Amino acid sequence: MLDVCLLGTSGMMPLPRRALTSLMTRFEGSSLLIDCGEGTQVSIREKGWTLHDIDVIALTHVHGDHVGGLPGLLLSMGSAQRTEPVDFVGPKGIKKVVDSLRVIAPGLPYEIRYTELTEKFHRIEMKGYTLEAFKLRHTVTCYGYSQVVNRVGKFDAEAAKSQGIPLEFWSRLQKGETIEAGDKVYTPDMVLGPDRKGLKVTYCTDTRPIPEIAECAAGADLFICEGMYGEDELREKAIEKKHMIFSEAAELAAKAEVGELWLTHYSPSLIRPKDYVENVRNIFPNTKAGKDRKSITLKYTDEED
Amino acid sequence: MLDVCLLGTSGMMPLPRRALTSLMTRFEGSSLLIDCGEGTQVSIREKGWTLHDIDVIALTHVHGDHVGGLPGLLLSMGSAQRTEPVDFVGPKGIKKVVDSLRVIAPGLPYEIRYTELTEKFHRIEMKGYTLEAFKLRHTVTCYGYSQVVNRVGKFDAEAAKSQGIPLEFWSRLQKGETIEAGDKVYTPDMVLGPDRKGLKVTYCTDTRPIPEIAECAAGADLFICEGMYGEDELREKAIEKKHMIFSEAAELAAKAEVGELWLTHYSPSLIRPKDYVENVRNIFPNTKAGKDRKSITLKYTDEED
Repeated sequence: MLDVCLLGTSGMMPLPRRALTSLMTRFEGSSLLIDCGEGTQVSIREKGWTLHDIDVIALTHVHGDHVGGLPGLLLSMGSAQRTEPVDFVGPKGIKKVVDSLRVIAPGLPYEIRYTELTEKFHRIEMKGYTLEAFKLRHTVTCYGYSQVVNRVGKFDAEAAKSQGIPLEFWSRLQKGETIEAGDKVYTPDMVLGPDRKGLKVTYCTDTRPIPEIAECAAGADLFICEGMYGEDELREKAIEKKHMIFSEAAELAAKAEVGELWLTHYSPSLIRPKDYVENVRNIFPNTKAGKDRKSITLKYTDEED
Repeated sequence: MLDVCLLGTSGMMPLPRRALTSLMTRFEGSSLLIDCGEGTQVSIREKGWTLHDIDVIALTHVHGDHVGGLPGLLLSMGSAQRTEPVDFVGPKGIKKVVDSLRVIAPGLPYEIRYTELTEKFHRIEMKGYTLEAFKLRHTVTCYGYSQVVNRVGKFDAEAAKSQGIPLEFWSRLQKGETIEAGDKVYTPDMVLGPDRKGLKVTYCTDTRPIPEIAECAAGADLFICEGMYGEDELREKAIEKKHMIFSEAAELAAKAEVGELWLTHYSPSLIRPKDYVENVRNIFPNTKAGKDRKSITLKYTDEED
């Protein structure tokens, strides 16, 4: 299972009860944070999650509303006695910006490592999942991200037995390892059924709608997408500011055939995002207005409650 | 009158409903901000005050919990179309830190100016008031501040008339100006009664209690002082961390003969500060537990409601 929580849903500036942009997920004890606007660490506490286990921080870009909460978060992770390294992922230049913000968080008890993105598409193997980064179209270089949890086929104990595979190799084969023992070679496909549906969440803010987004979000269980403005009448403004209106996000969701769409990164002028969601349900029915600490636990199709 | 609002009361890290340390005052259209922890700009909005009019930002020191909200605040002041310069005051080194944090707030539509403090005591004339800075005792260089509004004596129109002072000079004399006209010299004391009681608020966090604090807070209408821990049993810890317990703050308030004492800058471990206030009222009766957005309007003694 994969826990997903939208920590903040405001774009540009924080409002009471609407923190700046941030998303957190938890998978098998490892947390991923995407963006960290001012207010992120408080939202994590309010949700009751821990900031100690944030292994990866992916940044879409380095505008203030997406990274202003970083120094405080890093300090608090230090106070929470984290000692394992933290991996930053983001567009070229993030190291310089994060290092500069760290003027007030100089001596941390853990290492910070950077992966700077330069290509249109990156696939990075993380803690049991794949982080896919794809370039967006904004006023500065900006990336969207998919967290993809692949799932191998079901282990077939009968097949393992009938082929005489020693019990000691079973768990390694289940994890996808090929094993050579003497003159014999055991491969995972000997004991695993066909790949099963995994889990996928795609997150994308600060961009115009480009076809690559639908391609990279294809089949996601959850697609979290910016909707800076609710009204169709603000399309021109969205084009000028390199943002999206709700209906553009809904069109991407429909094209990508995702499970559900959550809107986020609202303009401060958008007081009640919910009021505009109904208008775009004819484009993509399963559209929801994100709000701070809206969360979901994505489960494998055969996973029990 | 002088409006005072405690924007955040948390030390070290922000909690839900307890933002990091910050104080704001408003005097004759000019706002003073002392410290700017993460969450300051949201607290200003929640209070319903404007960040546009912040002319002066005084920093006690540059620990993360006192300055982490600066880049977001400066960006939002830009969005609020501020164009007048903003004056920073604080210990030597603030320019370097603020400039470094400004990596995410590079192009602001207003100038930032710095006054770096080096002496034990500074008196700076500001927008109609005096900012007094006094050195504290913390793990790094740290200053406390008093905002002092002096008030000249009442204008005596009868005295002005009887001395034959031309009407055109009255308002300048009232403002304290000495005027030479031909062979005559008119001085303010010719038309003003004795100085009247002004207003004074003193703010002091991140320090051990030193005698200078009581001297600099002497006679303040409101003394806002750190109380990192409530229990007397934590005195040793307070000494080690260079902070104060409630009773030490109350002793300073009693010595300084202030009007009232508000405690602030609580340790995250101090869940209900109010529970410990009663214990120190035998030291200083008018002690109150500060909380986010606790505010007061200080008035001249003869000012009407």
